[in-house]
Order: sequence, then C-alpha cells, then structure tokens
Amino acid sequence: MDKVNAIFEPKSTVLIGSSKIRERVGMASPQLFGNVTYNMKRFYRNKAYVVDIDGRAGYKDLSKLPEVPDLAVIMLPPELSVVHAVECGKAGVRALVMITGGYKENQRASLLRLREMYGTRILGPNTIMGALNTANGLNTTFEIDLMPERGNIAVVSQSGGVGACLLDWACFFNVGISKFAFVGDKIDVNDVDLLRYLGKDRKTKVICLYMEGVKNGREFIDQARRIVKRKPILVLKGGVTLESAQRAKSHTASIAGSNEVFDAAFKKAGMIRVENIEELMDMAIALSKQPPMLGDNVAIVSNVGGPAILAADAVERCGLKLAALSSRTKREIERQYVGVDASNPIDLIADAKAERYKKALELVLADKNVDGVLVINMLKSTFFEPSDSRVIPRIASRFSRKPVVDVPAGGEDFAKVYEVLGRSSVPLYNLPEKAARALRVLRAYGMIRERKD
Amino acid sequence: MDKVNAIFEPKSTVLIGSSKIRERVGMASPQLFGNVTYNMKRFYRNKAYVVDIDGRAGYKDLSKLPEVPDLAVIMLPPELSVVHAVECGKAGVRALVMITGGYKENQRASLLRLREMYGTRILGPNTIMGALNTANGLNTTFEIDLMPERGNIAVVSQSGGVGACLLDWACFFNVGISKFAFVGDKIDVNDVDLLRYLGKDRKTKVICLYMEGVKNGREFIDQARRIVKRKPILVLKGGVTLESAQRAKSHTASIAGSNEVFDAAFKKAGMIRVENIEELMDMAIALSKQPPMLGDNVAIVSNVGGPAILAADAVERCGLKLAALSSRTKREIERQYVGVDASNPIDLIADAKAERYKKALELVLADKNVDGVLVINMLKSTFFEPSDSRVIPRIASRFSRKPVVDVPAGGEDFAKVYEVLGRSSVPLYNLPEKAARALRVLRAYGMIRERKD
Repeated sequence: MDKVNAIFEPKSTVLIGSSKIRERVGMASPQLFGNVTYNMKRFYRNKAYVVDIDGRAGYKDLSKLPEVPDLAVIMLPPELSVVHAVECGKAGVRALVMITGGYKENQRASLLRLREMYGTRILGPNTIMGALNTANGLNTTFEIDLMPERGNIAVVSQSGGVGACLLDWACFFNVGISKFAFVGDKIDVNDVDLLRYLGKDRKTKVICLYMEGVKNGREFIDQARRIVKRKPILVLKGGVTLESAQRAKSHTASIAGSNEVFDAAFKKAGMIRVENIEELMDMAIALSKQPPMLGDNVAIVSNVGGPAILAADAVERCGLKLAALSSRTKREIERQYVGVDASNPIDLIADAKAERYKKALELVLADKNVDGVLVINMLKSTFFEPSDSRVIPRIASRFSRKPVVDVPAGGEDFAKVYEVLGRSSVPLYNLPEKAARALRVLRAYGMIRERKD
Repeated sequence: MDKVNAIFEPKSTVLIGSSKIRERVGMASPQLFGNVTYNMKRFYRNKAYVVDIDGRAGYKDLSKLPEVPDLAVIMLPPELSVVHAVECGKAGVRALVMITGGYKENQRASLLRLREMYGTRILGPNTIMGALNTANGLNTTFEIDLMPERGNIAVVSQSGGVGACLLDWACFFNVGISKFAFVGDKIDVNDVDLLRYLGKDRKTKVICLYMEGVKNGREFIDQARRIVKRKPILVLKGGVTLESAQRAKSHTASIAGSNEVFDAAFKKAGMIRVENIEELMDMAIALSKQPPMLGDNVAIVSNVGGPAILAADAVERCGLKLAALSSRTKREIERQYVGVDASNPIDLIADAKAERYKKALELVLADKNVDGVLVINMLKSTFFEPSDSRVIPRIASRFSRKPVVDVPAGGEDFAKVYEVLGRSSVPLYNLPEKAARALRVLRAYGMIRERKD
C-alpha cells in the first residue's frame, strides 16, 4: 500500500491529544480534542483509538495500544507533537496528520527525518482540519457532528479557512463528497502526492483544489495532465494580485508566483480555473453529475421570458452559442402548444407543467443541432410546481451525451425545487448565469478530453 | 396628485376579474383572480373592492360601488379588459393596472384614448404581477400570501419573470422593499414616469431596474441623472447580445439597441450596471444600508487566512486598494493580541471573539488611511459564534462615513449569522468576492454623487 493511502484509508487510527493542554494561540485545546474524539467515534467505521497524554480519556500512551495503527492524528502544541510523532514513526505508524501549526524549522526537520528513516508520510503540519473520507467515515475535523454526504467530489485545500468554508458549503447544500484534505504547510505530502492518490481513487470523479502556491510545479502539471484525461480538475487560486500573493506567502509559506504563470500552467495541465468558492462547488457538481459537452450549441427551455433572455445573454457571454433548432423541432413544439414560440430560447409560457417540459426536452435533446440544454423552471408567476421538476432528470438521463442543467431561479423557488431535485442527476442553479457557466465548464472539459498531447 | 401616484398610493382600489373565464394561454383565470383577491384582502390597508363580472364574489359592476376608486386592477382577457377599462376611465378612476397580455393594436389604442380623454394612467398591459407597495399593503400579484418586508428598495421590472424572481429573492432573504412595479408593455406609464415617481418617493432610498429596452431614451437619462444625486439607481439589462436582443424585442416589444449604446447611456446617467439578479439585490442592499465609500482604501478584518486572501484578490480585482494601515493602528492591534499579524488583510486568528473584532474594528475604522472595511467572520474552523457578530453593526454605526460589509463565508455559517444580522445595518455576503463588489458599488456611488455635471 502506498503510504499516502494510509491517510485516507487506514485500517486503524489513533488520535493523540491532551485533555488538559491549551495552546495560547492555536488549535490544541481540550475542547477541540474532545470534538475530534467525538467525530472519530461518531463517524469512523474502522478501529479508532484515542491517546490522551494527560490520561483522562482513552489510552495514556501509544505503546499501550493492542496494535500499531496505520494512521496517527496528532493535535498537541508543536514540541509535544514532534515527540509523539517520533514515537509513532518508530513504532511503524504509516502516516501522520499533524493538526497544529506554528512549527519551528528544527521541529519540521524532525518530522521530515521520520519520512526519511521510516517512510512515514506526513500531512501538515498546520492542516487544521486534517483529512476526511466519506467512504469509511474518517473525519479528523473539529467541527462537531459535521460530515458531508457520500459522493464523488474530492477537495484539497491549502488553507484551513477556505477548506472549512468548502466543507460548510458541501454539508449545507448536500454536495456529495468522496475525500477532503487540508494540506497545511506541505512539508511532506504535497499537491502532487494528493493528485496522484485522488487520480487513482475510484470513489473520486472530480477533483477540486484550493491553492495559494505550489512546490515542484513541473511534476504537479505533469501529474494533473495525466489525470484530466480521466477526471476533471478544478482549481481556485488564492493570492492572485501582488499584495495578496505577498500575504499568501506568509500565510502558508509557499511561493506564490505570478498570476500569469499560474494561468498558463493550469491551461497546460488542462485544469479548469474558477473564480470563487461558490463556482468551485457549482462547477464540481456539474462535472460530477453531467457528461462533458461535445459542441457549443445550447438550447434554452423556459417557462418565463425575461430569465430566458438573461440566460441567452449569459450563454453567449460564456463563448457558447444559442443552438439553431432544426425546423422539425421548432415545428413540432409549436404545433403541439399554441402560443409557444419555439425559437431558441424556447418560451413554454407560464402555464407549462411537467408534460410540456417532457415533450419539449425530448424534442430538443434529440435535435442534432443541440449539444446541451439549460432549463429554466420558475415557480413564482407560473403554474409550475416543484413536483413537475421530476420530469427533467428523467428525460435528461435518456440522452447521456448531452448535458442538462436546471435553473429554478430565485430564492424560495430554488429551495423548493432543490428539495425535489437536489440529489438527482441534474445540477441546479439559482441564476441562469451560473447554469451557463456550468455548461461552459462542461464544454471546456469536453475539449480537454479531446486534446491530443 | 400626479396620477402615477394613484398606482401605488390609491385611497381605494377595485380589482376587476372573473370567477369563470379562463384564457386559453395567459393570466386570466378564476384561480389567479382568487389569489389576487386574497392578497388584496390580506395585505391592503385602504379600501379594496372586488368586481366579479360573473357575479360569484364581490360586486357585479363598477357602477355598484359606493365610490369611484382611485385605482382599478383589471385581469380579464384583452377584449373584456378594454371594455372595463373604458368604464373605469369614464367613471373617473385615476389609474389602471392591466395584468393580462396579448393585446391587439386596436385594443392598445383604446386604452391610450383613455389616457388622452380622461388622463387615466395605465400600467401595462401585460404587467403580469402589477404593482406592490409595502407601506399600504397594496399587492396585485397572484402569488398567494407573498409580501416582502418593508424597506427602502424599489424595484421596476420590464419582465414578469425577472420581476417575480426578484420578488421571490426579496421575500426569501428578507430584503426590505418599498415598491415593486412590473411595467409590462409600457403603452403609457414608462420608465421615465416610474423613475420620476420613485425619485420623489420618500420611502425609497435605492432604485433597481430590470430593463430590456427603453422608449424616449434621452428623457430617461436626464431623469436618471437628476435622481442619482439623491438616490442610487442600479440597472440590470437583458438582451445584451445580438440574438438575445432580438428575442427581447419579441418578448416586450421594445427596441433593444446595442449593448455599447446602453452602457454609455447608463454611465452618462450615473446609473450603476450589474450583471445578474443576485448582484442587483446584493448591491441594492449595500446601498440601502451603508454610506457611499469616499476613497479606494479597503481594510480586511478576518478570523481566517485563506478567505482573507481571496478577499484581498477580489478587492484589487474590483479596482479598489488594500489600505496601508497607519503604523499606529498596526502597532496597537499587535500589541494587544500576541500572534496577530495586523498587516492588511488583518488575520485576527481563529480564536477571535466579539471583543477582538470590536477592538480591531474601532482601530481600523478610526484610521484615516481606511475608507471602508470588509469583515470576514467564519464560524467553521473558528471559535466565533453567531452572537459575536452583533458587535459588527454596533461599531460600524459609530463611523457613519465609512461603509462596512460582512462575510460569514459559506453555507450554514452564512445562514446562522444571517439569522442574527440579516436585519441589521451591515449587509452580509456569503463570499468575499460579493462583499468586495458591494464596496466597489459603494465607491462608484460615492463618485457619482461627487460628479460635477
């Protein structure tokens, strides 16, 4: 077993902390230790041990455990963390997740020696939230009772804060997650290791990265380039402008490089760059649920006029095209529904229900001039009801080479349809512009896969 | 009284519809008539009459009413609508809201004759949802029991669908609304009339427009230019690209003009253009709650590192600057909180609670190098609790010339802080990028007000 695997798929795990010690500033405290202990017991389905070096809960010492665990999660102040890490290394623990930050140079060196001497793999230090695997319930985060749903999106974050925000987002909107890794200072396990692991991970279909800087950039790009042939990689880059890059440098001790350099590297690697946290999640959902788009031509099917016009604007601004529907498609729709104008964007009018959407979607998806469909189904000012939306994934799934995205535009309207379709195969967006961007990303990934290099 | 006022502030109103007639395609139906009847009775605080021309509910005929109402809301198929509109005009009704669409040329002409002969003002036809005034509870929309909270944001939408989406958004996120107008075909009351009315309306502090095209453009720009000295105007333009403009033309029968022409006109008028529905609401909230920003220099105060870096990126991408904090500010913060790096963005570290935010905000807002503040207070991965956020509007309100916006980044984190601060004077955003954009708009409005022309 590659020892990076031991971070996510340990057969047994030990959490090492203290029920007494509180760092002046930082992540070691009895409360946080208690929270991680709770999460390990609540979610982890393999064997979990707890070592409390101050002896109130669990084992007093690693040597007292009945076995040597694959993984140790250490959340003590740096000096003590190193002491226990060394013990773990010597005992044959395969991987370490080092939660706390603020390590001095010599302390980092001690950790790296474990890597050299025993091959121990180290995530962190300063990972803050550590690692999470929905398949076996491993969860080293200290947010009590917080676990995303199982799914096929993996997230790697260089920042604890951005990672926590993504985790919060995923849990709140029921985004299906495979793995989460908070990489922290990357003294050992780095982006390349994690990419390689997630590239092979059969539970992961889409990889999301938040990064501020990268070490061994060339290797990283080569690795990414191999992976994107099989699964898409989305990347959000922090520290883009000169000043924030400076700041990122002090934040995660990584060299940030210029924005242009990164942009060129991402393009070369076939990674898809996004602009913010919401877009990272939105686009990951699109890629995890829908096929890549094989051409530029988008049909818009709506029950309201204005939002369809905004969608048409957005489609063209994204560099996609409004599909020129075949005359047969247009004729068929208009024949069946008097008053409907089946020019693209197709306005099915406010009294359209499931049946009209079904018919229109069948015709539009079967049209060879159409590569993907943006559906709008508002509830307010229309006769459409949340249950009518069930027809959309049903029809979409019959056309497996053409992506379909859905926009129940608005606030309550979105929430109501989300209750019905949130877990379906069709991604939902609260604005037409976000759905258009999803189609653009599906198109971009289509082109990345076709790329000859 | 200007008769446009009668649309929003009638002393009495009559709703004219039918409990029997259903349009084949359109907005006249017993169910919708029932819904509007319900809303009028439920929300409207002045005298409301209902005329059911098929006599099941309310009065049978306008002539039977004990008084001539100021306003008539007519939701019948076109031909019948015109008949009743004429009756209203003759009787001295000051204004008409014409809900249904699909009017022929001669029917429109009949309506316009009322304007000529009796001075009757007409909103619509094809307004779909009509008009709404939170101050007196007037609500001609057919979404049952849907009423936004009172506030000072007015919305004018040329599209029923976009208007409905904005209304849904406002209700779902408790956005404070003064007036809502769905203008429809604009055969009489147009953007200029509505701008003039809202410009004078003391309940309205911010005006939001969704428009596809404009008639009498020069007058519109002149009117807008006068108003923006007193209150900001935000505009979302649909039909931006060639094809969607074509579509908009058939949608609302208005000439769309090229995007560049509109852009130049909006700039000249001092209107602030936004990109989508969410931004329209987000920016309106910022302008309704916070003062314009008088310089470019933004301080970021955060309890997490990564999101603060994303905020710094966004601030600079928006054309604003990261404020160079005075050495006194920096020194004071770092003296009081060991481990805090008070370079901008200021990272107060994950264990910051209300007290640390209070002190930092006081120092930063008092700093003459700072023109506005972007606060980030995540809950996940930190010790911050929703109740800690109360300190933010408290301090912000003491510095009335510097805007403060807040980012409880994420999904659940945002929702939790929104429960506490949603109705406070500080606008909330779920992403740093949206908050940076809000500051950019506050800065833009600051410059528009300073403009000499």
